[in-house]
Amino acid sequence: MQTFTAKHYLELEPGSLDNNKGDIDRINTALRVAVNARGKPGDLAESSVQNIHWPLGLIETGSEILRSAHGRITVTVFSENSAGADGSSQSYRVAITEPGDTTESHYGVAVDLGTTMVAAELVDMKSGETLASAGLPNGQIIYGEDLLTRLHYASQGGLEKLNSALIDTVNGLIDELCNAARIKTRMISALSAAGNTSMTHLFLGLSPSALRQAPFVPTINHIPILTAKDIGINITSYAPVYCFPSVGSYLGGDLVAGAIASGITNNDNMSLLLDIGTNGEMILGNKDWLIAGAGAAGPALEGGVAECAGRAEPGAIDNITIDPETYDPLFHVIGDAPAKNLCGSGLVDTIAQLFKTGLLDSTGRFSLEIKTGRWIKVNGRNAYLIQDAAEPGDKAKKLPVIYITDKDIESFIRTKAAMTAALTVLLDSVGLQLDDISHIYTAGSFGLHVSVESAAAIGLYPRLPAERFTLLGNGSLRGAREALLNSGRITKAEKIADKITYLELSVHPSFMSIFRSAKYF
Amino acid sequence: MQTFTAKHYLELEPGSLDNNKGDIDRINTALRVAVNARGKPGDLAESSVQNIHWPLGLIETGSEILRSAHGRITVTVFSENSAGADGSSQSYRVAITEPGDTTESHYGVAVDLGTTMVAAELVDMKSGETLASAGLPNGQIIYGEDLLTRLHYASQGGLEKLNSALIDTVNGLIDELCNAARIKTRMISALSAAGNTSMTHLFLGLSPSALRQAPFVPTINHIPILTAKDIGINITSYAPVYCFPSVGSYLGGDLVAGAIASGITNNDNMSLLLDIGTNGEMILGNKDWLIAGAGAAGPALEGGVAECAGRAEPGAIDNITIDPETYDPLFHVIGDAPAKNLCGSGLVDTIAQLFKTGLLDSTGRFSLEIKTGRWIKVNGRNAYLIQDAAEPGDKAKKLPVIYITDKDIESFIRTKAAMTAALTVLLDSVGLQLDDISHIYTAGSFGLHVSVESAAAIGLYPRLPAERFTLLGNGSLRGAREALLNSGRITKAEKIADKITYLELSVHPSFMSIFRSAKYF
Repeated sequence: MQTFTAKHYLELEPGSLDNNKGDIDRINTALRVAVNARGKPGDLAESSVQNIHWPLGLIETGSEILRSAHGRITVTVFSENSAGADGSSQSYRVAITEPGDTTESHYGVAVDLGTTMVAAELVDMKSGETLASAGLPNGQIIYGEDLLTRLHYASQGGLEKLNSALIDTVNGLIDELCNAARIKTRMISALSAAGNTSMTHLFLGLSPSALRQAPFVPTINHIPILTAKDIGINITSYAPVYCFPSVGSYLGGDLVAGAIASGITNNDNMSLLLDIGTNGEMILGNKDWLIAGAGAAGPALEGGVAECAGRAEPGAIDNITIDPETYDPLFHVIGDAPAKNLCGSGLVDTIAQLFKTGLLDSTGRFSLEIKTGRWIKVNGRNAYLIQDAAEPGDKAKKLPVIYITDKDIESFIRTKAAMTAALTVLLDSVGLQLDDISHIYTAGSFGLHVSVESAAAIGLYPRLPAERFTLLGNGSLRGAREALLNSGRITKAEKIADKITYLELSVHPSFMSIFRSAKYF
Repeated sequence: MQTFTAKHYLELEPGSLDNNKGDIDRINTALRVAVNARGKPGDLAESSVQNIHWPLGLIETGSEILRSAHGRITVTVFSENSAGADGSSQSYRVAITEPGDTTESHYGVAVDLGTTMVAAELVDMKSGETLASAGLPNGQIIYGEDLLTRLHYASQGGLEKLNSALIDTVNGLIDELCNAARIKTRMISALSAAGNTSMTHLFLGLSPSALRQAPFVPTINHIPILTAKDIGINITSYAPVYCFPSVGSYLGGDLVAGAIASGITNNDNMSLLLDIGTNGEMILGNKDWLIAGAGAAGPALEGGVAECAGRAEPGAIDNITIDPETYDPLFHVIGDAPAKNLCGSGLVDTIAQLFKTGLLDSTGRFSLEIKTGRWIKVNGRNAYLIQDAAEPGDKAKKLPVIYITDKDIESFIRTKAAMTAALTVLLDSVGLQLDDISHIYTAGSFGLHVSVESAAAIGLYPRLPAERFTLLGNGSLRGAREALLNSGRITKAEKIADKITYLELSVHPSFMSIFRSAKYF
């Protein structure tokens, strides 16, 4: 298993009159022997020296380090063509040279470029362990809470600011990770990132203007391996940066990374990868074929959509039960803190419970004829009260008012209808039934906290036995992490992205009719 | 025959809902088909997209040009691994994208990075023609006329200035070439350069400090293919720059380029490539083996060495005959201008004639006992007068005084002794005789103007029949030109440099004794 970057410790004789080839040339000779000794395919030692490419900025330092360290140096290399057809590569690039043996300090960073939260892990590429994890709100939020606002801002001259904000967020995470693990940022020699198509464009400073209008053609799906210096990431300058490939405007590298993390392409049986985030995206398939679509008709279930919704963090209600007689809620709060809002799973639970207790009818309207003190009016909309500012018997305490409006329910129904329609169209297009799906992998922080039973009960998840579900967690981050530890995953991710048949559902003829008919519980 | 960069005109359908892959991805798909249609080895279309590498700086513009030019674009690519063992390459890099069909405008620049003069040619890579040639004094001259002074200056903090001066000279030449051919500098998509090891280091901004002290280990011999942007050359930013490889501190890419231009590695018979420039360098061998050395004991024959010596340009005496009775000189001046100095060939002619007429004895001392008005004293040294300030019968005219001193003769004798010693050591080391050499190629501007008979008569050239000599001219520039037109030459140059057995003559045991015994005519 070849890591994304490989570190080779070399011991060279000093240059002499009998061996007065150039410093870099002698390093290359030793490097070829070392690479071959690790059993890489092909006889690199027979190849020409130009198969090891040094960036100009490393040639002088490489020579200086070789001399000052008396021939004992560690050279970190990577292959630009990890995604080569046969997985073999005869061509390497140098990422950094260091004095002495530094092979024990082999670090990489995996990043999930989320629209709302950016998450990162510092990975010890020698042991495979995660040394530190961190998350920060995407710095772009100041230019727009939701993606569409940001994309509009990008088209109005804000591209550079959006790019900087995201890069700054990633650099902030890297600082945090390095502080936690007590290492220097320059000791990191690889970065692997996955995000949706828009985030990937913004990460690279590419205009996302074509992504949100038909025919939804991205600037680029398969991103070449670039360097930290190219992008402005504060790790060692010539460290390679891998970005997971997108498949289409609405199907990004985050889902491809999820496909890698879930291993759906290893299965003989049909699997479904489901990511309900800013968009509801899914990949259906097995080791032979993959089909994907995004249900972009519905809004997200995360922060900023339902009025009282927020992220799954301390203070968020993540689990709720409604008493079928009193109609009062009983809930659990993340971190056992005072409740401040509902996270996605809390929202799904609330809707499932409202439906189960009859407070919600099958069209998604409140059964206001049921008598309970929980009905309130918020800005002229009907709402179910989850937490009042002052609960009875505790008048001194001022709490955040938490509720769910019929508008929130409508939004939710659109989302679940879009998910249902997307899945139906995908299944229809390959002539299969729901029950043919043997594994469902749910990705995204939403998927990690939601109750499978609740989500299936209200039709957000397909109605399949709970044991077929696997909670993948942050599949994007997990896939990015795997790419660091096994460059074969990079090859595979590129192949998966090429292999996926992507249905642009927003213009698919039957999508809208199925969507309309799915707007019921 | 594959040129260094290849231009491919592509016609793409606009992106649509049925074909909404990324812009760059669709370009890559079309590019693979185009590359394969030209009969390149390997099935690139089967390979992953990452085998075509786009620099980040070209991704956005590539996409914009594709859209604005309605799918009609020309993409210029090159292979970093032209020097691959088997000559095949599955990996390309993009140098530039242009709207429309620009395949007729395919330009490259070949450069000879001479210590004294930098010469360049603008090459039409489509037709193979040279569109313009230009030469400029190396801008480094203000920091030192000779190389050693410059290398000393580099070690005293002058590296950056020396680098800039050379880059400015090359950029000045490129401007001149573009003006002459009426093209824009950004239309040039490739540069190929050859120079001695020190010049190559300075061209890349690498410290040459290790080159002039034992064990004479360069920073790098085989230079990776870099981009114009890396080096600061004013052609299209991502144009590839190829630098011919050095073999050792005293045997540089200029001679390797000369080996390419002469074709000595194609011969079954033994050939000798001779370059008498700042150093006297030579390569001996045939298609099976190559051995090289540099006779660095003698000073150059070019400008700045003999007191009245200069470059082979208008005003330089390039041919001289001394009347055996009157001992008066009869000479030819380049450009039929008034004589101002002696170029290398004029110097060789003068010495050969002085020896032939008996004015010089076999130890290199003037025969002052011969009576002639040509003997003069210059700063206490004896000298032979070639042109007086006012020649008899033309008293009004003030001409430059041109002469040759016994010190000049001594310098020359050291040079020719070094050349002789170098060749003798090389021949001895392979157990061959002088007469086994069937072809002698003389490179350098010196070689182009010198009379083979004169040079052989006084032992500067090996005493072999004139018909065995071929005047190569600027072999460095010719080799650089060939690399632009045929990337196979790049592969070959890298192999030649690897193959050459380089004898460090300055520390070779028998070199000095042969040198001493060769200090006679």
